[in-house]
Amino acid sequence: MSQKAKTAITPTRAENFPEWYQQVIKAADLAESSPTRGCMTVKPYGWAIWENMVGIFDLWLKEYGVQNCSFPMLIPVSFLSKEAEHVEGFAKECAVVTHHRLEADPDGNGLRPAPEAELEEKYVVRPTSETIIGDAMARWIQSYRDLPLKLNQWCSVLRWEMRTRIFLRTGEFFWHEGHNAFADHEGAKGDCLHVLNLYEKFFTEYLAVDGYMGVKTPDERFPGANETYCIETMMQDGKGLQACTTHDLGTNFSKTFDIKYQTKDGGEALCHTTSWAFTTRMIGALIMMHGDDDGMIMPPRIAPQQVVILPVLKGDNDAGIMAYCSEIAAQLKEKGIRAKVDEREMRTPDKMWDAIKKGIPLRVEVGGREMEEGVVTYVRRDLGRESKTTQAREEFVAGAIGVLDAIHDDMLARVRSFRDVNTHEGQSLGDVIAHFDKNKGTGFMKVPVAVLKDSAFAAVTKDLSLTTRCMPFVDDGQTVLIAKAY
Amino acid sequence: MSQKAKTAITPTRAENFPEWYQQVIKAADLAESSPTRGCMTVKPYGWAIWENMVGIFDLWLKEYGVQNCSFPMLIPVSFLSKEAEHVEGFAKECAVVTHHRLEADPDGNGLRPAPEAELEEKYVVRPTSETIIGDAMARWIQSYRDLPLKLNQWCSVLRWEMRTRIFLRTGEFFWHEGHNAFADHEGAKGDCLHVLNLYEKFFTEYLAVDGYMGVKTPDERFPGANETYCIETMMQDGKGLQACTTHDLGTNFSKTFDIKYQTKDGGEALCHTTSWAFTTRMIGALIMMHGDDDGMIMPPRIAPQQVVILPVLKGDNDAGIMAYCSEIAAQLKEKGIRAKVDEREMRTPDKMWDAIKKGIPLRVEVGGREMEEGVVTYVRRDLGRESKTTQAREEFVAGAIGVLDAIHDDMLARVRSFRDVNTHEGQSLGDVIAHFDKNKGTGFMKVPVAVLKDSAFAAVTKDLSLTTRCMPFVDDGQTVLIAKAY
Repeated sequence: MSQKAKTAITPTRAENFPEWYQQVIKAADLAESSPTRGCMTVKPYGWAIWENMVGIFDLWLKEYGVQNCSFPMLIPVSFLSKEAEHVEGFAKECAVVTHHRLEADPDGNGLRPAPEAELEEKYVVRPTSETIIGDAMARWIQSYRDLPLKLNQWCSVLRWEMRTRIFLRTGEFFWHEGHNAFADHEGAKGDCLHVLNLYEKFFTEYLAVDGYMGVKTPDERFPGANETYCIETMMQDGKGLQACTTHDLGTNFSKTFDIKYQTKDGGEALCHTTSWAFTTRMIGALIMMHGDDDGMIMPPRIAPQQVVILPVLKGDNDAGIMAYCSEIAAQLKEKGIRAKVDEREMRTPDKMWDAIKKGIPLRVEVGGREMEEGVVTYVRRDLGRESKTTQAREEFVAGAIGVLDAIHDDMLARVRSFRDVNTHEGQSLGDVIAHFDKNKGTGFMKVPVAVLKDSAFAAVTKDLSLTTRCMPFVDDGQTVLIAKAY
Repeated sequence: MSQKAKTAITPTRAENFPEWYQQVIKAADLAESSPTRGCMTVKPYGWAIWENMVGIFDLWLKEYGVQNCSFPMLIPVSFLSKEAEHVEGFAKECAVVTHHRLEADPDGNGLRPAPEAELEEKYVVRPTSETIIGDAMARWIQSYRDLPLKLNQWCSVLRWEMRTRIFLRTGEFFWHEGHNAFADHEGAKGDCLHVLNLYEKFFTEYLAVDGYMGVKTPDERFPGANETYCIETMMQDGKGLQACTTHDLGTNFSKTFDIKYQTKDGGEALCHTTSWAFTTRMIGALIMMHGDDDGMIMPPRIAPQQVVILPVLKGDNDAGIMAYCSEIAAQLKEKGIRAKVDEREMRTPDKMWDAIKKGIPLRVEVGGREMEEGVVTYVRRDLGRESKTTQAREEFVAGAIGVLDAIHDDMLARVRSFRDVNTHEGQSLGDVIAHFDKNKGTGFMKVPVAVLKDSAFAAVTKDLSLTTRCMPFVDDGQTVLIAKAY
């Protein structure tokens, strides 16, 4: 047997994928579990990814005419009662606010909710904001002139989850929630598809992520939606992950919250509403789609830091080397590249491994030889530790954006290739059983939609822990993708 | 008597300042009360102000080396118990989460907290995050190499307030909270003063706001702080408003949360921590410092829209006028100016009044004559409706940034002049009584700090609803400002 190469992350993906995932998060210093049950603390390096995502996508939403605003984080329980179907879904498990004061516990055990401060109207921390925004829309929309009304908020929401995993499923998570109102079905459907296309553009152009765009089967729709559109991505363990959704809510919420408008001819009509989101789950997806056994690999265009410059100091002209590094960083920054010299008090190999585990796309190493010869040695994180290139400094600086673009393109190509190779074709429920039984098969299986009508479908998929991910557009809704999923 | 000019806002400031304030918010479409008790819904025009504030100040914090991150919105009650002094302050009135599930009420009245889902560990929605961030700092800081640690989060916090007013005092409000840790007192104090200077720079350069920078008297300090620094601003009714604070927490939180580091020589020491913030209150301050009887006046550098172009259409070459307007808007946008043609289906006078009430700094009116002559007519919002200037189009475009700068400078000069004229000097508690008694006097009164030692000081100021705002730096801490305040 060949000797196993040392990896920065233990266990490897092949050994234990879920544990590898947790270890990558820790090694990259992205986030940690918090003292609040099921909630995460997102550390600076992790939060910077989210900020970069928000910065880009928010501009696109604004170009599309969406207006940001802010609704209260607490929603009166009576609002949830109004939307019974909604409540049947996920809204039951949430954080319920019942009191408005703490007082010293007479038992001497710290603090307790003051019994006389019990609220008559209870609240929940928003699990999503359809209800409170619907209530506002009913007041804000009077006439056809007020339509379309396109609102969005960037915020966190909270759902009380029993089994949590950082980024993938946490009590509190971060997202944007768009809530739009239109005069008719065409407007609402067009909105769902337009935003879905924005998501795909964002995923492919910035996150180096691609999946299957499609429509959910009725069972998998958002409660209260007439249609749910989505992009379904595939992780390196072959499981699916829903990367985003857009919901055509028809007039369901309009009826409940009385969102009406006066038509041009003086009549009255119900609005057609939509909602859509992507969340901090996407950071989890980035890890599970791009990471390797040495840790994270950041897609360059969203990477908090795109280039790290490591000075290799040996006590001989260290100041000169540091100055050379700083000049290179300044030149890269001038080109709009997020570059930084690692000046920390730390051994060079430790810095190198830190950069690897954090997945910084491009690592530049500069020692005395590089400085004297006016060159740099760089390593592409995605190609691994041994892929060193030495180049004249000016040539490197001039080509750095191109190298980052190449990393992006290669990462996206790898993700697409993995998706394609791991999407299997089947014709019947029997094929599904044959592929996934006894945990042998992984990836997605694509079968004709007729398989959904098989009377054993529900029992079989439940038994094998499978879900229908979507009916991909690429097959005009004639097929359905089946997979295990996060 | 001269006939009273019609104003867009009823009542006027002189007639009823608090009611004028509410009407400006409504007329400018900034925000509204929400169905959630004491909480506001910030509408798109109001939220855009906050986004602009965040966008600028966040960059400055990052330049200073502050790292953004995100801590859970729910804080275990046991954390608050640890910091008893903290709890004695504001933390008692807060939203308490006691259950994690809703269920159908057996009485048939909608939903209720499920009794069996009562939480053993209760939570509060964060009123501020010193405790949960302190807990994390204790884990994240090991050695002197980890210092300074500069963290910040942009988020909302919630305090259960009995009497609320939009932007000024709401249950939920938005802020950034910086929490920094240093090796020693010098580091912490320097941090407080540096950030305080950043606030002043931001207020004067972007919000056209100035006040008094100084230090709080011991009674007015943040609970748990050794020193609280602040900027105190003056509203047009003469009342004070605390615009921001920075707190030198000394080792108080470090002791409670065990935030220690290993010193260079291998010893162990407590960190010195700080915290600082400004909030969405500043939007309220902008209204009360800059608004007039026609509504809001937006400081140009923070204004969501800096220039509005109003086409004056009379059915004669309307398309030509619209095209001319669009060209001007495009030229202004090229210069980085937030300009927009008002293309809504609405009467021109209604559009004009809408722009006035929203306080858009510069209003351009374009009719047939302007188009034919290649000119524009513009009105500065701060100079009032009658201040029209007609200028050749290219000249206007070339000078538009200069006009916006002039508006900013004039607004800031007015605020400073108002502050100076309404700051009165006194020498004794008797002077304070003489000025403020029977609600005659308004504004600030500046007295020697020795007045604080007057045995009747507490009773007199309480009786007159006065507070000590700060000991301003400009007098080297030898005076104290006294005023009514928001």
